[in-house]
Amino acid sequence: MSIIQNDSFLKTLRRESTPYTPVWMMRQAGRYLPEYRESRKKAGNFLELCKNKNFATEVALQPLDRYPFLDAAILFSDILTIPDAMGLGLYFEDGEGPKFNNPLHGEEAIFKLDIPDVEESLSYVFDAVSSIKKALSNRVPLIGFSGSPWTLATYMIEGQGGTDFMKVKKMMYSRPDLMSHILKINAETVSRYLACQIKAGADVVMLFDTWGGILSHHEYEQYSLNYMKVIISNLNILGFEDIPKIIFTKGGGQWISKQAKIGADGIGLDWQTSLSSARKQVKDQVTLQGNLDPSILLSDPKVIESAVKKVLDDYGVGEGHIFNLGHGITQFTPLENVLVMLETVRNYSKKFH
Amino acid sequence: MSIIQNDSFLKTLRRESTPYTPVWMMRQAGRYLPEYRESRKKAGNFLELCKNKNFATEVALQPLDRYPFLDAAILFSDILTIPDAMGLGLYFEDGEGPKFNNPLHGEEAIFKLDIPDVEESLSYVFDAVSSIKKALSNRVPLIGFSGSPWTLATYMIEGQGGTDFMKVKKMMYSRPDLMSHILKINAETVSRYLACQIKAGADVVMLFDTWGGILSHHEYEQYSLNYMKVIISNLNILGFEDIPKIIFTKGGGQWISKQAKIGADGIGLDWQTSLSSARKQVKDQVTLQGNLDPSILLSDPKVIESAVKKVLDDYGVGEGHIFNLGHGITQFTPLENVLVMLETVRNYSKKFH
Repeated sequence: MSIIQNDSFLKTLRRESTPYTPVWMMRQAGRYLPEYRESRKKAGNFLELCKNKNFATEVALQPLDRYPFLDAAILFSDILTIPDAMGLGLYFEDGEGPKFNNPLHGEEAIFKLDIPDVEESLSYVFDAVSSIKKALSNRVPLIGFSGSPWTLATYMIEGQGGTDFMKVKKMMYSRPDLMSHILKINAETVSRYLACQIKAGADVVMLFDTWGGILSHHEYEQYSLNYMKVIISNLNILGFEDIPKIIFTKGGGQWISKQAKIGADGIGLDWQTSLSSARKQVKDQVTLQGNLDPSILLSDPKVIESAVKKVLDDYGVGEGHIFNLGHGITQFTPLENVLVMLETVRNYSKKFH
Repeated sequence: MSIIQNDSFLKTLRRESTPYTPVWMMRQAGRYLPEYRESRKKAGNFLELCKNKNFATEVALQPLDRYPFLDAAILFSDILTIPDAMGLGLYFEDGEGPKFNNPLHGEEAIFKLDIPDVEESLSYVFDAVSSIKKALSNRVPLIGFSGSPWTLATYMIEGQGGTDFMKVKKMMYSRPDLMSHILKINAETVSRYLACQIKAGADVVMLFDTWGGILSHHEYEQYSLNYMKVIISNLNILGFEDIPKIIFTKGGGQWISKQAKIGADGIGLDWQTSLSSARKQVKDQVTLQGNLDPSILLSDPKVIESAVKKVLDDYGVGEGHIFNLGHGITQFTPLENVLVMLETVRNYSKKFH
């Protein structure tokens, strides 16, 4: 294995010392970049960007080529590739979120749900990983990712995003047997999916638990966290103990101490959560990633600089913090504001290391 | 002042002993009730239900007439009556949330914003309070309410609900001066509004801070909590110290200890927050209200019974808990499931008192 030139992100996940706080942005390859919008136009649609390894590589590298100080790249893909491979028929309508042609309705369909042949049906993702990894030439580490089993299940049952989650909640409360069946299959599939991403070159893997935060404090552990734990254990059993693993439950700031116990190397935080309070809860044993409100990037340089410093001050002195946004960067973000954020992180964070 | 026959709700807000845990439901006068749908059809639209005191009284009493064991009534109104009185032009389109004809755009419009003549422009609300109070014949206490200054501001700036809050966030971060101006006016208007509701007969007042949870842990206090504190102080100065005050920040479970310090008698909790953990944070000095996930009411009696018991167990022995949902009851709730919940609260809670 060749040596990664800028390994500050990996070192921070291992709680080793670095000269500054590493930074990357969720959705850093995205619509706020004019070159991304250009690529998307060429590709015709979003799914083609994901499914064609040349496009996926092109857009994954764009933020790194434009900006200095980004310390990680992330696979360009969608969190819903797995349900698509299960036959649910993922599609995107212009200006709308993801939808499924065949959402999971009824006991029969649910018991028919099975682990897909991941290597075969999701080969385009692993091709993209290899291709991005190669194009990176070891400049920075590459993050692979998946939706969490619970988050995948919400989309599979609701059939789309942006709902009130009544279908998935009703199933969870009325038919926990059906819900567990889906979650077990999702956890096993995600484990295989991430294992293949690692084999293809991912240096780190991350689980996006976008909808874990809609669960109650009673159910979060049972329906979301435990299945993320299964995936981490599976990856460790498969021999990937050394690959750092990050989990991120949006809206899950009240459950940090539980999250710290499932073997993840990093925990993502949204802006509702205080880094210093989270740091106390993880007892400096798990790296924290976050947590600037992405809408701050819509304001102006002075405000951004001060807000970035506040985030860094909140974590304070010592290793174990990866700077990030608390959610994906919005498409309306002015390009120069991103630079202000990245420069402030790089310069101001040195004093904490 | 006549004596309220069932005063368990008031007593719990004063931390006095009661024989069982009192219960009411957010949005208890609502679309899940066939008699409500009938009234709405008669009225023609939702705003007419709010603006006509006979309709408002009819629907406010419906849940109390149908169900035993409800320990409070709540004013039937909308949280957006205040911006409407400010001239923003509230309207509802069928099947959609509230919208404004004249949302707050631009510095000029914002500096023109002024405290409306509350007594005059919102007299229909106070008429509804008096009428409901009279119709209740002191069976149970009546709750008056308002949106919080921050929550009103989000609607006023976004122009509608269900947005990504980019407009309001951008203003907050770029023009805190404009935001403070709006919030000060809102806080002063809400103070007068609630004072009038109390004079018209409200026994308790509640602030719905529906969107406080989108703020960061840095900004919550500055932009939402502090203005709720101002309202509580204003009401106390006006001589309403004895009227219990409840605040409810949806998604605000990480800030309970801050919420406990603004002089509120009760704090509402959503289902993401553990009652026992919140109880420790308020040190048994503030009453807690909540926090069953309303989607549990879509399941079946056994599940509901067990979930209700879990909530009561979570709070445990002692005074200071008002049972409620963690958000409004959904329109798809089967009528018999509400009864299961109410009966379980009444019967199972006795052992804790």
